[in-house]
This record gives sequence, structure tokens and C-alpha cells, in this order.
Amino acid sequence: MGETIDYKYLTNINSPSDLRKLKVEELPALCDELRQDIIKELSVNPGHLASSLGVVELTVALHYVYDTPYDRIVWDVGHQAYGHKILTGRRDQFCTNRKLHGIKPFPFPSESEYDTFCCGHASNSISAGLGMAVAARLHGEKRKVVALIGDGSMSGGLAFEGINNAAGTPNDMLIILNDNNMSIDRSVGGMRKYLLQLTTNKSYNNIRYKISNKLTAWGWLNDDRKKGLIRFNNSVKSLLTRQQNMFEGMDIRYFGPTDGHDVIELVRILQTIKDMKGPKLLHVHTKKGKGYKPAEENATVWHAPGRFDFESGERLEHKSDKPQPPRFQDVFGHTLLELAQKNPRIVGVTPAMPTGCSMNIMMKALPKRTFDVGIAEGHAVTFSGGMAKDGLLPFCNIYSSFSQRAYDNIIHDWAIMNLDMVLCLDRAGIVGEDGPTHHGAFDLAALRPIPNLTISSPLDEIELRNLMYTSQLEGKGPFVIRYPRGCGSVVDWQTEFEELPIGKGRKLSPANQEDEEIAVLSLGPIGVEVRKAIMLAEMKAGKPLNIAHYDMRFLKPIDEEILHEVGRKCKRIITVEDGVITGGLGSAVLEFMADHGYTPNVVRLGIPDQFIEHGTVSELYKIIGLDAESICEQLTNK
Amino acid sequence: MGETIDYKYLTNINSPSDLRKLKVEELPALCDELRQDIIKELSVNPGHLASSLGVVELTVALHYVYDTPYDRIVWDVGHQAYGHKILTGRRDQFCTNRKLHGIKPFPFPSESEYDTFCCGHASNSISAGLGMAVAARLHGEKRKVVALIGDGSMSGGLAFEGINNAAGTPNDMLIILNDNNMSIDRSVGGMRKYLLQLTTNKSYNNIRYKISNKLTAWGWLNDDRKKGLIRFNNSVKSLLTRQQNMFEGMDIRYFGPTDGHDVIELVRILQTIKDMKGPKLLHVHTKKGKGYKPAEENATVWHAPGRFDFESGERLEHKSDKPQPPRFQDVFGHTLLELAQKNPRIVGVTPAMPTGCSMNIMMKALPKRTFDVGIAEGHAVTFSGGMAKDGLLPFCNIYSSFSQRAYDNIIHDWAIMNLDMVLCLDRAGIVGEDGPTHHGAFDLAALRPIPNLTISSPLDEIELRNLMYTSQLEGKGPFVIRYPRGCGSVVDWQTEFEELPIGKGRKLSPANQEDEEIAVLSLGPIGVEVRKAIMLAEMKAGKPLNIAHYDMRFLKPIDEEILHEVGRKCKRIITVEDGVITGGLGSAVLEFMADHGYTPNVVRLGIPDQFIEHGTVSELYKIIGLDAESICEQLTNK
Repeated sequence: MGETIDYKYLTNINSPSDLRKLKVEELPALCDELRQDIIKELSVNPGHLASSLGVVELTVALHYVYDTPYDRIVWDVGHQAYGHKILTGRRDQFCTNRKLHGIKPFPFPSESEYDTFCCGHASNSISAGLGMAVAARLHGEKRKVVALIGDGSMSGGLAFEGINNAAGTPNDMLIILNDNNMSIDRSVGGMRKYLLQLTTNKSYNNIRYKISNKLTAWGWLNDDRKKGLIRFNNSVKSLLTRQQNMFEGMDIRYFGPTDGHDVIELVRILQTIKDMKGPKLLHVHTKKGKGYKPAEENATVWHAPGRFDFESGERLEHKSDKPQPPRFQDVFGHTLLELAQKNPRIVGVTPAMPTGCSMNIMMKALPKRTFDVGIAEGHAVTFSGGMAKDGLLPFCNIYSSFSQRAYDNIIHDWAIMNLDMVLCLDRAGIVGEDGPTHHGAFDLAALRPIPNLTISSPLDEIELRNLMYTSQLEGKGPFVIRYPRGCGSVVDWQTEFEELPIGKGRKLSPANQEDEEIAVLSLGPIGVEVRKAIMLAEMKAGKPLNIAHYDMRFLKPIDEEILHEVGRKCKRIITVEDGVITGGLGSAVLEFMADHGYTPNVVRLGIPDQFIEHGTVSELYKIIGLDAESICEQLTNK
Repeated sequence: MGETIDYKYLTNINSPSDLRKLKVEELPALCDELRQDIIKELSVNPGHLASSLGVVELTVALHYVYDTPYDRIVWDVGHQAYGHKILTGRRDQFCTNRKLHGIKPFPFPSESEYDTFCCGHASNSISAGLGMAVAARLHGEKRKVVALIGDGSMSGGLAFEGINNAAGTPNDMLIILNDNNMSIDRSVGGMRKYLLQLTTNKSYNNIRYKISNKLTAWGWLNDDRKKGLIRFNNSVKSLLTRQQNMFEGMDIRYFGPTDGHDVIELVRILQTIKDMKGPKLLHVHTKKGKGYKPAEENATVWHAPGRFDFESGERLEHKSDKPQPPRFQDVFGHTLLELAQKNPRIVGVTPAMPTGCSMNIMMKALPKRTFDVGIAEGHAVTFSGGMAKDGLLPFCNIYSSFSQRAYDNIIHDWAIMNLDMVLCLDRAGIVGEDGPTHHGAFDLAALRPIPNLTISSPLDEIELRNLMYTSQLEGKGPFVIRYPRGCGSVVDWQTEFEELPIGKGRKLSPANQEDEEIAVLSLGPIGVEVRKAIMLAEMKAGKPLNIAHYDMRFLKPIDEEILHEVGRKCKRIITVEDGVITGGLGSAVLEFMADHGYTPNVVRLGIPDQFIEHGTVSELYKIIGLDAESICEQLTNK
């Protein structure tokens, strides 16, 4: 918003040590201010709203009770950490959040000593926190470690591996389970039911209440001694349940559930359990979007709502008079349903992203054939593999960067058996403001070495439809389709389906001139930038140039006919891909040329060998040389 | 053993339908025969012994009760499936087990209709089985699906993701938890404790016993009605424990624990629960190595014992008068301890392979600084990342092919933060008899695109020591060292440590001749084959040849000085790597040559773009052209 509002408390908090000077009674007012600050800022500078509102009290309580940054708070999925950023000296810069060269979208150690670990992908906080707790122990430090994790992230196998190991390794870590019964949509699976059961077990709560009354009447229980109360709760549980619960069954002391919006109570509990030895878990209930009514009512929409009017709660969506190209994800969503309605073998699988990848369209129409498996990318692929093995045709949709979680599953539970199944990688290539953890940079290079895979990327929406159509035809084997975040380039995309020949690209321009010297080979929608670049180059030259542009469509199998043609004819080949240049399309072209004795000059354009920061896609394209202007320079360089 | 022994029952069983003709009383005798058959065969034809002995009764009971192959048995880690192979028509071929062109080391669908899924890597059976159960439901098939899983595999996140989803998706799958308190060494972590508690909860068992006596006395309980007994057991649990246990907390009906070596009882239980609706878990206790005393006593050693004398139980180890080069894993193990004793920051982390990677050496000497995290490769890396973030220097050792499980963790929880930590990839390259799921084929190509990584591979044991020494010096960042299964080439390997310059290779032969035409660039111990190939070529030519051989040592950063030198001087460059040629060292060399305008003829030798079968390493090298003879041919080809 540009201007920083003056608040009674928040304005004076430049670091958690300022926060710790407040009286505990002042914390609710501070929480209100912090919440207002987040909402107001996000109304003009879009970001992740609902989850950050949900943890305002938790954030304040943690920095109040724990001696940060000496003590470690490990966030899980950092888009909830806006309050944390504001309280840890970044309030002035918060208006640059997610902007190019501004503060990072997620906590990251190089930005602040309060940011303990990278937290773009879900479910890693317990494992990382356990590492820190063990390090503290080995160093003889008194440091406390708190790992937060949402109930949605709890379905991720890594979280379970972390908990399992936390139970078996000496440590004093506190795990805070932030239970809002949501990941981005809703959490699913047994763990969700389990947590619900823990909370709603009426007889347990009734008996606890009765015994508590009795003990208080007898003078055995005393509200001043809060430690006693917590121990008492645990012992009542022990009385009632021999296995207590799965956490305690695994030797992790369980506390809760407690109201995550009662900051005073949170402070009290944290102070109480802070110094207890051994691994502990505190189960906290929060509400996503808490304190902002529109967000409370529809947390999925308000997960990352874009700009909105603070007063009315109206989301300010871009509206245009002209018809716009659709988002690739919506083309996927509508096309999937269309295909599934014709082909009864098709099922849909998403790891917690039904809205994000638009599989909710099929989920609504064909609920029995659509599976949201929760945050569990590895399982999504292996589960799909099992269905494929028994005759179904799964379309499994995973964000490119999250599919890194399923790398072994893709190899071992799919490709090796050559199963008919389609893996759609949404958010491939540069994604923009979510930054380095979310760019889908590695998929092409990582998947290309895997035998049996067909790897494709559509130039535009029509091609995406046709690739999806082709992939579900009989016996196509393991089929990958990757496409980016955001909109395509074609308005009238709902054309008739057309089968595309596997491993065949196409020449976009010019039509068969014999004297062409430069060939540009592109893969995916970045080809649209190449088109612009060629137009730009021709405009600058004032005449048509003899540049051949090929849309490769397939990275694997690669179109050998095209490669022979350009290898024979062209002195200079430029490859363009929205993925790392180390090992991707450019390398595939080099390998082919070397194997067949061609010696053209090959220039590879793509994502360089470094983690790319956040910013808008067009800003980042400019920086890494993938915008039309930069590509144009390469075309005219000799 | 070549000859097939005649047994009363086993000889006549050519498929499970023959098995199902037996009376249930005959099954114990069949189990004895099957066990003898496995032990005798493995005494001469090495393989995985202890785990296959542990599941003899379970295997017989499953094929007896279920209508395989219509019903699906999904194995988890297939080296326990020898009994399954013998009962499903492969007894005659069992002597070819693990041999080139013989039957596969693990069940695999293309080999038999009884093999339902690829099962080389742990923890995937529940996810795959759930896929099959859902497919059966959607197809309206009455098919039953049984997924087996060991307690060791239960620590893998994928297993949890599968269970979590099984709880939330309509299905009638049976999960059999084969609990032997072992993976290859011992299972670790909270799940182990949890399972132990389930079993040993004395008051539960006492009360169950008492109530059972009472009810029997009252005539309410009747041993003929076994369904009743099982329901009774569950209801006693419900009486005692409100949460029952974590499986039931997740809406998965829990049965057991029961004795996994009582085949009659197993058959009875399976028949009882077979038709029950909804997801179920049967907890079975078995003993690894059951029925063969030496294996029972030390299941870790007898996991894959090599040849042995059937009568005496003496393992027939290769003995040689000459001192032999050590195994790379032992060089790792001893060197790690040596370094850890000098550098207090060093800690060791292994996902369930302390013996397999020889980290047990450090574990014994420095138990507090060595962490076996169980089968949990992703957690192993993220946990190491947490320790590295807080000042420790983890050496995390993972088998190359299993490290595919940690691909995202390597990127997101390590490389992106540029943390000082060493990832040692054992079993890299072709591993031999364990086949396609175990070859460490993809690591180089998959890791090369990741920014910040240093990726190295030692030519021999001394180089391994020096790379390990170098990697733990201050500020080396993320450091990968990959080396193969088996022995190196140097007998006197315990030399003084030497720091190796990062990203620098070395010229092995010849010494700076100006007229060299061919350069061979190799990475890792495959360089020893290259040396042999050059000797062979020179022998054939009858004179020294002008072939320069460079040991690159580092894939990343690659030695640009060497590449400039060979790019300038050589007409022909041959790259040799024990990894996929798609995207590995050869591609890195091509990328460099293209970027710097060199146009040598580059020939890339490595693992071709297909899944490589099983066989001895030297047989497989021959097939894929990585043996000295094949490399020699490339040297003399022009």
C-alpha cells in the first residue's frame, strides 16, 4: 500500500524482543493490529491471505514465549508466515512481499536469521526441526525447537517419516499441529478423520470435565498450577485409553486440542510445556481466514485471493471487454471431463490440488472417478500406477515442482512397467511470484533420462487438448504433458480433438525455404515468445528473415526427422525451453547432433544453472533471457 | 542346484490351483518342503534368504485362500517372494533366479500374471494395492486385493500416504503387516515402538484372556465360530481403548497380532476376514530366517548370505591368499569414522542401511553421532539438512537408486540453501543381480541440473577417501560422492588424506604428448575399465597409442581446463560413465563444447536409454558396451 499505518503496539515492534516487552494482556490487541495490517496490505499487494490470518495468535504467542532467533521456529509451507515476517523486522519491507527483489514469498534463511529453513513445499518442518533439535543437543545448547505443521501437510509421507524418527531419536522438540481441516482445499484421508476423532470424542471430554470438577472440589486440582492441569489431562487420557493416541503410542507427548485463537491461553500452554523433556505435540485448532469474514466463509477462494476491496470484501478481478485466452489449468480441467465422459477408463488423481489444477470440474461431475489423495505426491503416482495396472487410465495432475516428490514413483511404480497413464505437470517452468521453490524448472531434465516415458509440452491450449486426447488413446504408455501456470494464447480453444503423432513436432515458420540458416527449436508455450522474437527481428531488419521455427511438441521421443533436417541445413540452431538448460531440450539436440555427426552451432536458451528468484514471469524471463527481446538478440547475433 | 528334488507335495504344485486342492491339514508339511527347497537352492545359488523363510506360511496361506491370479497379492520388497515364485509355476526355473536371462530378482508383472506390481523399492504396496482395489470397484469386479508390508517398510512415508488414503477411499483391501521387527538391520522409530506396544500390552492381553475365559464359561463364546472370536477381540479392544489403535483410529479395521508361522490359523483368519467390507489390516508376527537356525540367529547376516553349506550353515566366503582391494562401502565406513574422530561436526545418517553402507562402523564407535532413521530416504536428507543448518556436517549415505526417493529433499531441503552436507550415493551404476530397480543409473543425470551441488565420483578407494576428506573441509557446500557396489582396485588404500581441488580432474595417461588425437574422459571407477581398454588397444596395435585418458573426478563443476584442452587438441572425445548417457557426463561435455565453439566428434558411452535387466556386473557391462573390450573397440574405431 506504500504507506505504513500507525498502530498502538505494532508500530513499535521492530523485532520479537520488542514484542516480549508487552504484557500478556496486551497481546490480543496486538493480534488485532497484526491481522488488520496483513489484510490491508494484501488487499493491494496480493498474496496468501487466509492461512496467514489463521496463525496470527500462534505467531504472536511463539515469538512471545520463545527466545527467537536463538530458539528455532520452523514453519511448514511458509505462505502462512506473513505475521512472522512483520514481527521480525520486515514490516517496512512487507509492501515488497513477492515483488522482484522484494522480500521473499516464503521464509528463507538468507533473508532473516528468524527464518530457519526453506519452506516452500509442505511437510518438511518436522524432519528439519528434528535435525535442529539434535544439533542443539550435540552442541550442548539449550536451544528450543518448534516445528509447525498443518493438518493438510500431515498427509505427506515426509511428515510421518519425521514423526516416526522424532519418536526414536532423543530430542526435546515441540511439534505444533495447526489443525484447520484444510490444506488449500480440504484435508483428506485417515489422518483427518483421526484428528477429528481426537477432538470430538465426547465421552473423553465429558469424563475429563467430570473428573476435573471432582478433583477441584476435593482440592486436588488448582488452576494456578497449570502444569498440573496439563498433566492431569494427560493422565485422564491414560485412564481412558490405553493406547492414548497415535502420537503418544509413538512416545510423543500429546497436548490439546486447544483454541488457536486464544493468544493468552496459547502463551500459557507454551510456557508450561516449553521446558519439558522429550518430543511433544500440541494440537491447536485454528480457522483459515480468521478475523476477515469473507475469508472465513470461503478459505479456498481466499487462499490467495488477488487484490480486493478491504471494506466490502469484493475481489477485484481483472475484467476485460475482449475475450481472453483461458488458463491452461482450465483447459486441462474441462478437457479432462470431456474425455472422461467418452472414455470410461479415465480416472483423475490430484494430490490436494483439485482447485489449483481445475480437476474440481471432473470431481463435481464424476465424483467416483476423481481422487484427491491429499498432499501425497508419491502416493498419487503409485496409486495411479496400481489403477493403471488393473486397466484404468489415470490422469494424475501434479504441480511440476511438487512432482519432484514423486521422482522415484515415476520411475519405479510407473515407467518401469510401461503402464498406460498420463502425468500432467501444471505450473511447469517459471511460475513467477512464488519463487525458487515453486518454479517448475527441473522436470524436463529430470524426466528425460527415464526410459519408456513420452514427454510432451503443448504450444497452446488447442495443443494441450490434442495431447490429452492423444495420451488416452489405447496403448500410449507412460505419457507426460507439462504446461505452465497462467493463461495461454488462444481464445477459441474448444476445437475438435485431433490425434497427434507421437514424437513428431511441426514447422511453424517459414514454409520450406531452402536457404534457411537459422532454426529455432522450441518446446511448449515459450514458443509464443519465439514467434514474437522472430516478428521483432523481422521488424528490425525491415524484411522477412530466413529463420525456421519448429515447435518440437515432444522432448521424448524427439523428432529425429526435424533434427536431421536442421542438422543438414542449418549453421545455427537455437533451442528454447522454459526449463533448466542443463540436460533438457538443448542437451537432447546436442546429443542427437553428436550421435549423427552434425556440427551446427547450437545455442541453448532456458533457465540457467541457478535457483531463480521471485518476480513476475515477464520480469524473470527478461532476467534469464527468455523474453522475446532477448531471444530476438540471439536470432540476430551471428 | 541344477537338479530338482522330489517332494511329496511341492513337486505336484505347478500353480496355486494345485495348492488349493490340498487339505488344510497338509499345509504345514508343504510349508516344510517349500522352506527346504528355498534353503537348498539358495545354498548354491545366492539370493535373499532370511526374509523369504519368514513368509513361507503367509505365502502358502495367501495362495490357498485367495483366488490368485484373479485376486491380487501385492508384495512389498520382493526379495521375500521366493516361495511365491516357486508356488506360481516357476519352481523349475528357480535355479536361474537372479541370473542373466533367468527369472527376475523381484516379482515383476511381465514375468508372471501372479506378479502384480514392481516391488524393488520398499513401502509401495499399499498405494499400488489401493489402486487395484479401486480399479476392481470401478470395474464392478469381485476381485480381492491383499497388500503385504513389512514393519521396516512401514517407516517409509509412502506407506503412510497409502494408509492415510486407504482410510479415506472406498475399498475392501486387506493390508497384511508382516512384523518381524527387522528391515534389513532393525526397524527403528516410533512405529516400531508402537507395534511393540500393540503386541505386548499386558493388561490388554490379560483382560482379553480373562474375559474370554468368562465368556466361554458362560457359553457365549464358541471356538467353532472364529468370526465371533475375531469380532470379540476387537470389541474387547474397544472396551479397553477408546481410540483402539492408530489403524482403527483411521477407520481401518485391525486384526491381530497373530502367529505368522501357524499356517492353519492364518488360513482360518484369512478365510474369515476375506469378504469383510472396507479396509482391513492384519498384524502378523514372523521371524526372519524362520526354520533355518543360523539365519534365525543372525538375520542381518543371512539377509543375503551368499553361498553356504546347507548342513553346517557355514557361509562359503571367497577367500584368497593375495590381499584383495576392499569394498567401497568399507572404505566409506572406516574413513567416515576416521574423519568423525577428527571433526566433531561430522554426524552420520543412514536410512536403514547401517550394515549395507558400513556406517555401522561409526555407529559402534560414536553411537550418539550416528542416526539410522529407518526406511525414509526423504527424511534422511531433510533431517540432515536441519542438522547442517545448525552447524553439524552430516554424511548422509543412501543407495543411489533409493536416493530417487529424496529428489525433492535434495533440491528443496538442501541445495537451495547451499548447506554444508555430504550425500554419499552407494550402489551407483550397474549393481548386478538385483536388476533394474536397483541399478543406480539415474543419479548423475538427475542431480546435474540442480544448482549449487558439487557432484563427484572417485576412480578408486584412495580417491574416495580424499573426496570424503575434501567434502568435510569448511564451506564446501552441498557435496555428492557416488561410488559403486563391490570392491575397488587398490589394496593399500589407507593413505594420508589429501585435499582435492573442487572441479578439477586429472590426466592419467599419456603424459602430455602433443599429437594426441583421442581423449577419453571417464568419471568414477569405470575409469579402471578404460585403463584396461587402452592397454588392450595398445596390445592389439603392438605399440603405444596416443590416447589421453582423463579421470574427471567431478561431474559438477566440470573441469573446464581439461575440456578446453581436449576441445582444442582432439578430434575425437569418448566419454565413459556408469550412468545413463541421457543427460550425464557425455551431455555435460557436449554442452561445454557447444558453448565454446569446439566441434570434436564426441562419443558417449554409458547406460543406454532402457531399463537394464539383472545379471552379473561384468555380463551387463558387456551387453551395454561398458566392458574393457567394448571400450577398446570404440578407441580403435575411427
